[in-house]
Amino acid sequence: MDHQENRQFRLARRPVGHVKREDFEFRTDPARAPEAGEIMVAVEYISLDPAMRGWMNEGKSYIRPVGLGEVMRAGALGTILQSKAEGFSTGDVVTGALGVQSIATIAAKDCTKIDPALAPKPLFLSALGMPGMTAYFGLLAVGEPKPGETIVVSGAAGAVGALVGQIGKIKGCHVVGIAGGAEKCRYIVDELGFDAAIDYKSEKIPARLRETCPEGIDVYFDNVGGQILDDCLAQINLRARIVICGAISQYNNTTPVKGPANYLSLLVNRARMQGMIVFDYADRYAEGAKEMASWLREGRLKSREDIVEGLETFPDTLGRLFTGENFGKLMLKV
Amino acid sequence: MDHQENRQFRLARRPVGHVKREDFEFRTDPARAPEAGEIMVAVEYISLDPAMRGWMNEGKSYIRPVGLGEVMRAGALGTILQSKAEGFSTGDVVTGALGVQSIATIAAKDCTKIDPALAPKPLFLSALGMPGMTAYFGLLAVGEPKPGETIVVSGAAGAVGALVGQIGKIKGCHVVGIAGGAEKCRYIVDELGFDAAIDYKSEKIPARLRETCPEGIDVYFDNVGGQILDDCLAQINLRARIVICGAISQYNNTTPVKGPANYLSLLVNRARMQGMIVFDYADRYAEGAKEMASWLREGRLKSREDIVEGLETFPDTLGRLFTGENFGKLMLKV
Repeated sequence: MDHQENRQFRLARRPVGHVKREDFEFRTDPARAPEAGEIMVAVEYISLDPAMRGWMNEGKSYIRPVGLGEVMRAGALGTILQSKAEGFSTGDVVTGALGVQSIATIAAKDCTKIDPALAPKPLFLSALGMPGMTAYFGLLAVGEPKPGETIVVSGAAGAVGALVGQIGKIKGCHVVGIAGGAEKCRYIVDELGFDAAIDYKSEKIPARLRETCPEGIDVYFDNVGGQILDDCLAQINLRARIVICGAISQYNNTTPVKGPANYLSLLVNRARMQGMIVFDYADRYAEGAKEMASWLREGRLKSREDIVEGLETFPDTLGRLFTGENFGKLMLKV
Repeated sequence: MDHQENRQFRLARRPVGHVKREDFEFRTDPARAPEAGEIMVAVEYISLDPAMRGWMNEGKSYIRPVGLGEVMRAGALGTILQSKAEGFSTGDVVTGALGVQSIATIAAKDCTKIDPALAPKPLFLSALGMPGMTAYFGLLAVGEPKPGETIVVSGAAGAVGALVGQIGKIKGCHVVGIAGGAEKCRYIVDELGFDAAIDYKSEKIPARLRETCPEGIDVYFDNVGGQILDDCLAQINLRARIVICGAISQYNNTTPVKGPANYLSLLVNRARMQGMIVFDYADRYAEGAKEMASWLREGRLKSREDIVEGLETFPDTLGRLFTGENFGKLMLKV
């Protein structure tokens, strides 16, 4: 075990606009043996998330940027090869910020042991992982939907959006999803049970919002920002809640972010727009995961993973998030 | 009393950009005698507010637009000349939406009797009226400041802003005001007790915010919108609250409203931006006015009125709100 190879992507420069392969160094180093309190993990699945684009930028954010020369940060799941940490044994399966690499040596306290008998491993990076917790707490704790209200969610076929809509249906709401392309729109209505879908690639969003939300919008769960946020702001109800979870349309901007010109709709409607970061709910993950797992078991919640094989495909696979090519929770199988 | 003359401003056309005299018809009609449930009021003071600009525009808002040909809506104070309503007598002083006219005939149920022995009449249109209630509930119920936090307020020498800052000081906060010109800046610091002032006409706001808010911004009370909102968004703290009370910089736009390009600071900081309309707190006005009146009596709260004589000056006097010429709560003395 002493000379295992660790294939890894390190951030070589700060990307401008869309991420390119040259923004990273793909190299192989000897894996580092664990020290006291650490574990060495064979990484199996790496979660690819829109937020990773922000972590590559310099500047103050909710988490420190990935440093130049560092292994790219990513949530991942793997099996312990060696442990120097109490309570963690070889063969245990863990999740944590293992990074875009094949072997991670990391403090055990920063990882969470999971029980792979409970669900297929990829689910622990989707419905039972960060996207699941983001959807659960973002919708329920920030959006505060009430039965009978209308929820609109963008990025509706994505990892978070698909769960937001399904949780909304479980809570008795009228749910409309905005997604790109006929296949995704069909999927969220026919397979996930959304009440309606709007195809932002081929339909006029304002007119379709009026059709599909005849009673206006009470909760808008925003994953995309840009013009769609503005279109939704124009049709919110009194005391509406807008959950700002992401702004994928703006992450690769090389020009200034487009602010929501219709923000004064918040004033007219006494509505609120509130940002949400899943890490704030860490002390409630167990509660969220328990309820999500029971909905999965009961068949009330479906989770779709989009799994790409090959660590070496990382930069190109990540790029699929921003072109709308992925369908379901995107992850790499190492 | 049968042929009293009512001088009045009626909305003649929908203004484009800044309000012009030609947007109104100034005419004299016989005053209408009150019918059952109505009172006829000699209007003494008319409140001039930024919100009036919005009421002149067509389209859905929190209140119906003033119709073409109708007397311009305005809050005002006057003395009853004739009453056909129980509980209201000749000589009683009332406030209500009496309009921009010298004599109003109006349903008594839409007016509030006030006790002119408690405070000078103009105060019932400022600290004890809508601006006072806006400041009180906007800051305390929406902004939710905690002692030791930093509050920034724009339009800080205006009717609402000056009260917001003083209430913030009473609540134990660090308070910074943004106002236009050295005289207003001196006033809010030296006379009202703000901790610091930023002159948006001569100073660089981002640098001055860093200097005057070394611990960041916890509550931003926005009366102006535009670039100042963006500058404040860039310096908010975790879980900051942004109260959207107005956007006077945008009310006369003939181009699209400038959306806050830094709105993703809400995401990074898990902050919220929430609109506020004073009418929503109508059932708590008595509570707010009681506390404001006691602070006024104790000398902890100062109110400044900017009273212009002459109903006929209405369009020009209203325009002073948008050029920053007024200083204190602007009103007309009929």
